[in-house]
Amino acid sequence: MAKPSEGPKMPKRVYEARVPVLREELVQMQVALQQAPFSALVTIAGDDAAGKGEVINLLNGWLDPRGVETHAFHASTDEERDRPPMWRYWRTLPPRGRMAIYVGGWHADALETPASAGRASFEATLQRLAHFERLLADDGALIVKIWLQLSKAAQRDRLHELADDPDTAWRVSPEDWKHHRAYDRRARLAEHLRRVTDQPDAPWHVVDAADPRTRNVELVSHLLARFHAHQRKHAKPAPAAKPGRVVTLRAAGLKRLRGLSLDQHLSEDAYQAKRDKWLGRLNRAVRAAAEQCRSIVWVFEGWDAAGKGGAIRRLTSAIDARDYRVIPIAKPSDEEKSHHYLWRFWRHVPRAGRVTIYDRSWYGRVLVERVEGFCREEEWRRAYAELNDFEAQLTGHGVIVLKFWLHLSAAEQLRRFRHREETPYKRHKIGAEDWRNRRQWRAYEHAVGDMLALTHRPGAPWHLVPADNKRFARLEILKTSCKRIAAALGHDV
Amino acid sequence: MAKPSEGPKMPKRVYEARVPVLREELVQMQVALQQAPFSALVTIAGDDAAGKGEVINLLNGWLDPRGVETHAFHASTDEERDRPPMWRYWRTLPPRGRMAIYVGGWHADALETPASAGRASFEATLQRLAHFERLLADDGALIVKIWLQLSKAAQRDRLHELADDPDTAWRVSPEDWKHHRAYDRRARLAEHLRRVTDQPDAPWHVVDAADPRTRNVELVSHLLARFHAHQRKHAKPAPAAKPGRVVTLRAAGLKRLRGLSLDQHLSEDAYQAKRDKWLGRLNRAVRAAAEQCRSIVWVFEGWDAAGKGGAIRRLTSAIDARDYRVIPIAKPSDEEKSHHYLWRFWRHVPRAGRVTIYDRSWYGRVLVERVEGFCREEEWRRAYAELNDFEAQLTGHGVIVLKFWLHLSAAEQLRRFRHREETPYKRHKIGAEDWRNRRQWRAYEHAVGDMLALTHRPGAPWHLVPADNKRFARLEILKTSCKRIAAALGHDV
Repeated sequence: MAKPSEGPKMPKRVYEARVPVLREELVQMQVALQQAPFSALVTIAGDDAAGKGEVINLLNGWLDPRGVETHAFHASTDEERDRPPMWRYWRTLPPRGRMAIYVGGWHADALETPASAGRASFEATLQRLAHFERLLADDGALIVKIWLQLSKAAQRDRLHELADDPDTAWRVSPEDWKHHRAYDRRARLAEHLRRVTDQPDAPWHVVDAADPRTRNVELVSHLLARFHAHQRKHAKPAPAAKPGRVVTLRAAGLKRLRGLSLDQHLSEDAYQAKRDKWLGRLNRAVRAAAEQCRSIVWVFEGWDAAGKGGAIRRLTSAIDARDYRVIPIAKPSDEEKSHHYLWRFWRHVPRAGRVTIYDRSWYGRVLVERVEGFCREEEWRRAYAELNDFEAQLTGHGVIVLKFWLHLSAAEQLRRFRHREETPYKRHKIGAEDWRNRRQWRAYEHAVGDMLALTHRPGAPWHLVPADNKRFARLEILKTSCKRIAAALGHDV
Repeated sequence: MAKPSEGPKMPKRVYEARVPVLREELVQMQVALQQAPFSALVTIAGDDAAGKGEVINLLNGWLDPRGVETHAFHASTDEERDRPPMWRYWRTLPPRGRMAIYVGGWHADALETPASAGRASFEATLQRLAHFERLLADDGALIVKIWLQLSKAAQRDRLHELADDPDTAWRVSPEDWKHHRAYDRRARLAEHLRRVTDQPDAPWHVVDAADPRTRNVELVSHLLARFHAHQRKHAKPAPAAKPGRVVTLRAAGLKRLRGLSLDQHLSEDAYQAKRDKWLGRLNRAVRAAAEQCRSIVWVFEGWDAAGKGGAIRRLTSAIDARDYRVIPIAKPSDEEKSHHYLWRFWRHVPRAGRVTIYDRSWYGRVLVERVEGFCREEEWRRAYAELNDFEAQLTGHGVIVLKFWLHLSAAEQLRRFRHREETPYKRHKIGAEDWRNRRQWRAYEHAVGDMLALTHRPGAPWHLVPADNKRFARLEILKTSCKRIAAALGHDV
């Protein structure tokens, strides 16, 4: 964490000689950024009266506005409060090739958290922010965090200077004086925040803001230097991974998968006799969850043709059509591809009391992307922890997370593939890709095993469902869902 | 508006013979839709217990879920309430090539408006919805609106049938019986809604829902028929317009533009002496507006190099950096291009009490798109009314709309273009496109004139600013903005 260099004021003519050069370099930087495989996040935070607004205005004037967005965070809206705390930040992230400037960043939010929330809550927030920045940095984002620092004496002088001129007195509010009186406490808190959230790829840079010209030059120079260093580091595209490799990280998962008995069966009559009873229970359970403002997230993963869609339709027949959404996860769109892979899942996190059903999910990262080499090995190896953390944010917010793996024998899959090919209205469900995936069965099997072992967590366990018999699988999913929801609400089924 | 055909029940074997054909045709329709130059909006509304949920489930099962989204509207969130009423619908619109299914549509929202809001408010809502659908239909959207109708007797029978079976009793709520008792009043209201919102390109289709099989077949057949008719109509791409044509719709605007005196001047000293005073006033005016939860939208249009960016930076220096956003309008992104041209402006409508500054705006439709032939003549001719309506929705919601046209002489523009080319950090602001636009000066002048004449409205007037002298223009914008905001709030300046 760089310390501010206090020094003499920069003469006007020195400043005016440097500005055109800096402006030109900023514009060049933006041109280079457009082609770069990363986004740039710039936080301008700092002490009161240190000139955050002036700096934002300056950057907005010097940068080409078509490549940059400015964001600030106000009191949370209900759409934000209804979701885990990080949702509001995820929704502002720029795609690769673009820059976002954050006035105060998520850090200002944290600092304004009322003391009544308690120290532990503040520390938890800081950890969450540090984790968030690490996640983005791991994905290649350039994270530049500037803290504009003003000593207590300099702050007092600045406030007096503004207040004494009738034309600028409006810039000083009673709030500013209140903050000035609490300078020492606020400075300690800010220093603590910077220490906890300072990381190799997301360091704080403290700029002495006493002299505005020095401040501007140092801030822009720092941004340029960080950009160029980052660009050099990310110049070489990482080597693509080889598809279809068979790797095992944790054998226990594969063992659990292979140990699943697939010869379960349920007759049409037995199914009919029980189905409506369980649908009724599910309906009550979902409504009870909504009454407590608890959301439900269903995750359906499974082999191609395992019956995910059919199982989902049975579930949804018991839920009011206005209360759930089914999100089918196919290939990411261009917009989704230009963001962190979790971005598109954050977008769809349901509001409190609603239901989202994912037909395939974020586990694509450690299944298809791992097996087909769509991401690098270090990326999918890191992903298990990232996925666990994502789900922990959901469950920590009260979301009930139900994860199902629909398991199928290779023989039954073959039978269903052929049936699809023979049925005109099902033919769109089967293509070359499915046959290709089937040839990678072993590599997928190991990937599924690792997923089951490494992301089976108390709040978000995996339920393995034998799916060779569709009726059995559907009822099993219904029953398990009812039981899990009831348990989460502290009810009987 | 087609009437429901009441008839005998469809035998199961007839139904089962038709289903595979319909499913196949639905999937084929989706494949065709992907390549079509329009989106498809399907509303499933209807009487209680008519099977809206079943139908949604059916469509979700029969359609390929990757090309369709389902939306329902609940109580408005604060983010929605803080914006004009149609904002929540705009945010759900699918891009061209995709389909959205609306459970109840915006129509259910309207029907659930409490009677206490008054009849006039209900009628105004219906007009707004009709206008919205016409706007989308004019843009080519396929709008299919299905009303599932159930007679009072059939509704009673259905509710009893469900309630009497312990396994399905949960499907019937006390609310359903309450609605049943109010059947006649609700049916009259719904019929009135259908009559007012029935239009050639957005007709209602009423389906008798007494027999579920007949209902399903008729509904899907109707959707398919509408799709194919629509596709035939939109098969031929419309002829592109010729760029650079000089057209005049209303000579008064051109006269006003040419009558503007451009030799206004303000010395550096005179500017310095007044600027801070007006910035202070602007700061107070913006804060006063925020206290009343009034948003402010600034629209800056003007010749290339007229000084829009500089004027915006002077304005924003008086506003808290957290309270405003500058939205530069450049070429639309792929995502924006695949929606109605107003969609990207609706996205950025500010929340109550916030400020959005558009650096170029929706007027691009009747300026660059008109002159360069990026849209068809009938499209830009229609746009004046659409733009007026959009702004009326803003002002009707209490937004203060300030529109500035920065006017420049051709000689001064030339001087500025050359200066930009000679200044390294300004070179990115000038390119072949600017020189090309300059050669179309006359065509643009007529387009500007028409815009000034046709979109100069009491709540959203155009302010013409002579901008050959930047200082004069900036102060003029500051003063006019302060006065307009003060007037809107009923204050003195």
